[in-house]
Amino acid sequence: MKVSIIGVTGYSGLELLRYLRQHPSVEVVSIHSHSMNKKSLEAVNPHLKHLISLPLEEINPEKIMNKSDLVFFATPSGISKELAEPFIQADFPVIDLSGDFRLKELGAYETWYGSSAAPLDLLQKFDYGLAEYRENPQAKWIANPGCYATAAELSLAPLLKEKKLDVDSIVIDGKSGVSGAGKGLSQTTHFSETHDNMTVYKMNSHQHIPEIVQQLKKWAPTLEVIQFSTSLIPVTRGIFLTTYAKLNEPISDEELVDLYCTHFENSPFVRIQAVGQYPVLKQVIGSNYCDIGLAYNPQTKMVTIVTVIDNLGKGAAGQAIQNLNIFAGFDERCGLELLPIYP
Amino acid sequence: MKVSIIGVTGYSGLELLRYLRQHPSVEVVSIHSHSMNKKSLEAVNPHLKHLISLPLEEINPEKIMNKSDLVFFATPSGISKELAEPFIQADFPVIDLSGDFRLKELGAYETWYGSSAAPLDLLQKFDYGLAEYRENPQAKWIANPGCYATAAELSLAPLLKEKKLDVDSIVIDGKSGVSGAGKGLSQTTHFSETHDNMTVYKMNSHQHIPEIVQQLKKWAPTLEVIQFSTSLIPVTRGIFLTTYAKLNEPISDEELVDLYCTHFENSPFVRIQAVGQYPVLKQVIGSNYCDIGLAYNPQTKMVTIVTVIDNLGKGAAGQAIQNLNIFAGFDERCGLELLPIYP
Amino acid sequence: MKVSIIGVTGYSGLELLRYLRQHPSVEVVSIHSHSMNKKSLEAVNPHLKHLISLPLEEINPEKIMNKSDLVFFATPSGISKELAEPFIQADFPVIDLSGDFRLKELGAYETWYGSSAAPLDLLQKFDYGLAEYRENPQAKWIANPGCYATAAELSLAPLLKEKKLDVDSIVIDGKSGVSGAGKGLSQTTHFSETHDNMTVYKMNSHQHIPEIVQQLKKWAPTLEVIQFSTSLIPVTRGIFLTTYAKLNEPISDEELVDLYCTHFENSPFVRIQAVGQYPVLKQVIGSNYCDIGLAYNPQTKMVTIVTVIDNLGKGAAGQAIQNLNIFAGFDERCGLELLPIYP
Amino acid sequence: MKVSIIGVTGYSGLELLRYLRQHPSVEVVSIHSHSMNKKSLEAVNPHLKHLISLPLEEINPEKIMNKSDLVFFATPSGISKELAEPFIQADFPVIDLSGDFRLKELGAYETWYGSSAAPLDLLQKFDYGLAEYRENPQAKWIANPGCYATAAELSLAPLLKEKKLDVDSIVIDGKSGVSGAGKGLSQTTHFSETHDNMTVYKMNSHQHIPEIVQQLKKWAPTLEVIQFSTSLIPVTRGIFLTTYAKLNEPISDEELVDLYCTHFENSPFVRIQAVGQYPVLKQVIGSNYCDIGLAYNPQTKMVTIVTVIDNLGKGAAGQAIQNLNIFAGFDERCGLELLPIYP
Repeated sequence: MKVSIIGVTGYSGLELLRYLRQHPSVEVVSIHSHSMNKKSLEAVNPHLKHLISLPLEEINPEKIMNKSDLVFFATPSGISKELAEPFIQADFPVIDLSGDFRLKELGAYETWYGSSAAPLDLLQKFDYGLAEYRENPQAKWIANPGCYATAAELSLAPLLKEKKLDVDSIVIDGKSGVSGAGKGLSQTTHFSETHDNMTVYKMNSHQHIPEIVQQLKKWAPTLEVIQFSTSLIPVTRGIFLTTYAKLNEPISDEELVDLYCTHFENSPFVRIQAVGQYPVLKQVIGSNYCDIGLAYNPQTKMVTIVTVIDNLGKGAAGQAIQNLNIFAGFDERCGLELLPIYP
Repeated sequence: MKVSIIGVTGYSGLELLRYLRQHPSVEVVSIHSHSMNKKSLEAVNPHLKHLISLPLEEINPEKIMNKSDLVFFATPSGISKELAEPFIQADFPVIDLSGDFRLKELGAYETWYGSSAAPLDLLQKFDYGLAEYRENPQAKWIANPGCYATAAELSLAPLLKEKKLDVDSIVIDGKSGVSGAGKGLSQTTHFSETHDNMTVYKMNSHQHIPEIVQQLKKWAPTLEVIQFSTSLIPVTRGIFLTTYAKLNEPISDEELVDLYCTHFENSPFVRIQAVGQYPVLKQVIGSNYCDIGLAYNPQTKMVTIVTVIDNLGKGAAGQAIQNLNIFAGFDERCGLELLPIYP
Repeated sequence: MKVSIIGVTGYSGLELLRYLRQHPSVEVVSIHSHSMNKKSLEAVNPHLKHLISLPLEEINPEKIMNKSDLVFFATPSGISKELAEPFIQADFPVIDLSGDFRLKELGAYETWYGSSAAPLDLLQKFDYGLAEYRENPQAKWIANPGCYATAAELSLAPLLKEKKLDVDSIVIDGKSGVSGAGKGLSQTTHFSETHDNMTVYKMNSHQHIPEIVQQLKKWAPTLEVIQFSTSLIPVTRGIFLTTYAKLNEPISDEELVDLYCTHFENSPFVRIQAVGQYPVLKQVIGSNYCDIGLAYNPQTKMVTIVTVIDNLGKGAAGQAIQNLNIFAGFDERCGLELLPIYP
Repeated sequence: MKVSIIGVTGYSGLELLRYLRQHPSVEVVSIHSHSMNKKSLEAVNPHLKHLISLPLEEINPEKIMNKSDLVFFATPSGISKELAEPFIQADFPVIDLSGDFRLKELGAYETWYGSSAAPLDLLQKFDYGLAEYRENPQAKWIANPGCYATAAELSLAPLLKEKKLDVDSIVIDGKSGVSGAGKGLSQTTHFSETHDNMTVYKMNSHQHIPEIVQQLKKWAPTLEVIQFSTSLIPVTRGIFLTTYAKLNEPISDEELVDLYCTHFENSPFVRIQAVGQYPVLKQVIGSNYCDIGLAYNPQTKMVTIVTVIDNLGKGAAGQAIQNLNIFAGFDERCGLELLPIYP
């Protein structure tokens, strides 16, 4: 299978390259960037020296479709909604890592992203690509989930599907590594301001909130809102989510862990920690794993769910390849069996 | 005023030295350590070279009381409950930075600290030293609050005292810098395991939980429990607390900020951020400030309170000196007017 | 004594504020910025909330000279050479923290800074402000040294003055914290690129090279060149210099340390480490100290000199205040006796 | 090919597992630890959950030789010299990642490692495994080089072999990430002491000095000593080496880069940077690459060589696998074609 990558110079695009190099059945045949199509990829990414001989090309849909079988958009928000149309018109498979095709409700994109959404007919063609819960695995057009959203949805799926939660009680405290902010320079990502620091951002306004609610409602239709906050921690990669919710009935830690183990027993990339153990962020870095630890507090009747992913792995490029595998009929794990890099 | 410091070689003890050097009315006359009373302080702390000429001395209560007017215990849990008695018998002022005299309820210390508590009569002599809410400002014996506890209590005081909270809905997500774990070596504080990482610890079992509940109950007697979790982030200093709670009535962000500004208008070390602004961790490092930002979410009816302190400042040595100032009748700010170190 | 600060919003300007707050004999009466003179200082520096009531003002030399007795320029290169002239014409004292008045040789500034130098008559009015070796302590106009230059010159002074070095053999390997690059955004200071990374920069072209050579030649006129390289390490503050040079004669470590101790016995801010001990970067952070460790290698006949300073302290604001103290006849240590912040 | 790993729980052992998982022709059949043979590997390394089903076994040479075709020792110094003998007696292949079989000169090990060396006949059986310069590629017993030594030797090989250097002028300033200190707890690796800090260690006494000299003498017999220092920087992985040496004749940067490119044209893991470009540490992390940048300074007649490797990759596990590939006749790159992880 031959693929092209648009937006290869961003962190998610580079991570697609890193994983796909290991993929036994996929070849990257062209790479594209809308911002720097004159320079070579090596010139700005010395870690790729001697490793990627492909030239950086302009984005020409015709040429891309002639060469390859599928295209990844690893572009910032607002790009793929402009550029994906010719591919869809031509019935050509697209996996979009940006937020442009995730929100299905009219007006939601505009409210949360601050610009007009993709046309509704295009929006509806995209299947939301939470790999463990794909509704339409044959879909040719996949909206790959956001990093926070992936972690939040996997954290809550079993309890919501089993109707064990008070759906009005969910609080999600999210922390992200700085690579989540991408390559763009800003005060918030300036080393002297970020190192040895922690910052809350987008208070009650992060664009993953409607995405998470949209997915959770599929499992718990009465759920309307979640309390969700996002902070920046001084690490390069990773999402660390601490989720709190009241249970309808008491449960033991053993039952809780069993519930999750059973629920995810066919999900090779979700690893439930043993009773009394909680994942550390680094245990998933460089990989596609989502690791989850669980505790029930009988005093407060609340469960605490600790979830970690690599924002560029399961939160972006890793899950995109998992979705490619599902689409192409490969084993879900193809190209994704790298061990996390530790320490 | 002359003071002695027991436990000067720990991080809180060193921080007492740093602040007291600026104090116009206090002189440190002796320093003590139970672990290394042969070496000089400079030998293990090269940053103090040429700066502290006092020798490290053994802990002899008689000699200490002869020399000085007050003693600080900056020792780990379990030490002051053994060593403080002769001072109290002699009616000599003590400020204890450890947890040994904070929990007043029978059995609480043993449950949460895992060893037997100080004798009840001693416990009751100590005033809980949350500087902004001292019950007995003339108290000679002060149990300086824990770092998390300080931040949590200041975060919630105005809303609880004004009876605006659903007291069963409180969730506190706490993050601490690694210096909170002290100088002792452990896997969790080993650089290669901690750097670029984040870890939850003491799930539902942190010893500051009963301390916080004990204080919050004074303001809201029906409050019985809180959901409180603690994580380690890869910074040296700092407590970053994100607190969530449901409000009984809607409120605007402006009203919320006003409520806090009014409440703390005579508290020079609590700085309420303007509407829409949230403190970053570094803005208090090296200082005694507690900075608080606030947001109300009308969708979830929850308030989010973002609170930062330096765990060694307002969370330990800074507040201890603030308590000394209150006890001695000095201006609360004496010796504490250092600017935060930024960046 | 009343002072004004131009360029107060940069890291060195902020550090001047931090130190001067402790200074018993100096008051900051006005603060100025050429880039953001509409906003208040607090608005962009929340760590200063409630602490600095002065407004940010435009740079009006007349008004500044009416209000104050001395002006600091804490501006980037290229500003003070444009703005300092009216002060000098009016015989008004200036301490310039930038590189604009350091290089006395014709053409040197243009070669190394890439723009035209200040007029020669102005250049010659400025005394080079290496505080331990001031040529003209009464000078009204002081060119405060660069951070690397300060560390390099203090490292080599005793051996050069005693003619113990092979002056052609000097190699200085310099490492700097990221705050040295200032507040300006760049790829090199973007957290995701800088954290967990190390980079060499300005290979053989750092503008402190001619400054160091200019000063070393005063002590060793035959010295013409030095090998000097600069790297960025992932810390916020600090200069860590490892200097190597061949000695003309063997020496013992004891003699070496003695030579330095004697040389600096009246320099309160230079602390020579004992034989076999070498300073760590953090032991000077937040302070004006320059700590030096020494070792002689009989096999290679080379001395290794390990030197640490805070780039914003002894490398900028701290030394500037030390120079102000010298100029004003205060004790050199006034306002600078803060302990390093550790850990 | 089947292999066993002794010392699998250390950082180098874990990294062998990570690389070998990708190796098309090698299977890890048993894993061993002398320190924790009761627990499973997963229990102490949650990043390996579900990924390594092998049990941790005791070290029984007979059993190991029955099961596998080659054994790696990824143990600390002092272990393999005790445990390797039965394998050698049985003519069984061994790749030793420790320093125990590197130093061939009588007395050198004892001088630099502080304990008695392996028996001389064993020592002489081991080929020094600098992969790009193997003397005896068929050797069954391979002493894998040290991390600093690998970087230093590759840095200097072309210039020494071409006799372009003044061999008495070499100064190597080495910096290492903290994982180089292994898993053992110490003050120097305690987060609060190491983060935001830099430290020089083993001044003139690092055990890689004699190893480097031994190898460099093969290329330049008159070389007797090098000036070499080692520092700890606050990153997890990586060696960053800045090497200085005087050239006998002037050279242009172009000639210098050409010389290295030609010299290493058949060395896929050594990547010479273009003129004016210098490698950053992160561009090799997670990989087996050694990246080198070069500059000649006509003023000082010195070359500066900037060299980066991953201490656990090319500096340990990566090169060990490269040596296995050479021994087994595989393509040198097998299992090592992972892209560096960036950012």
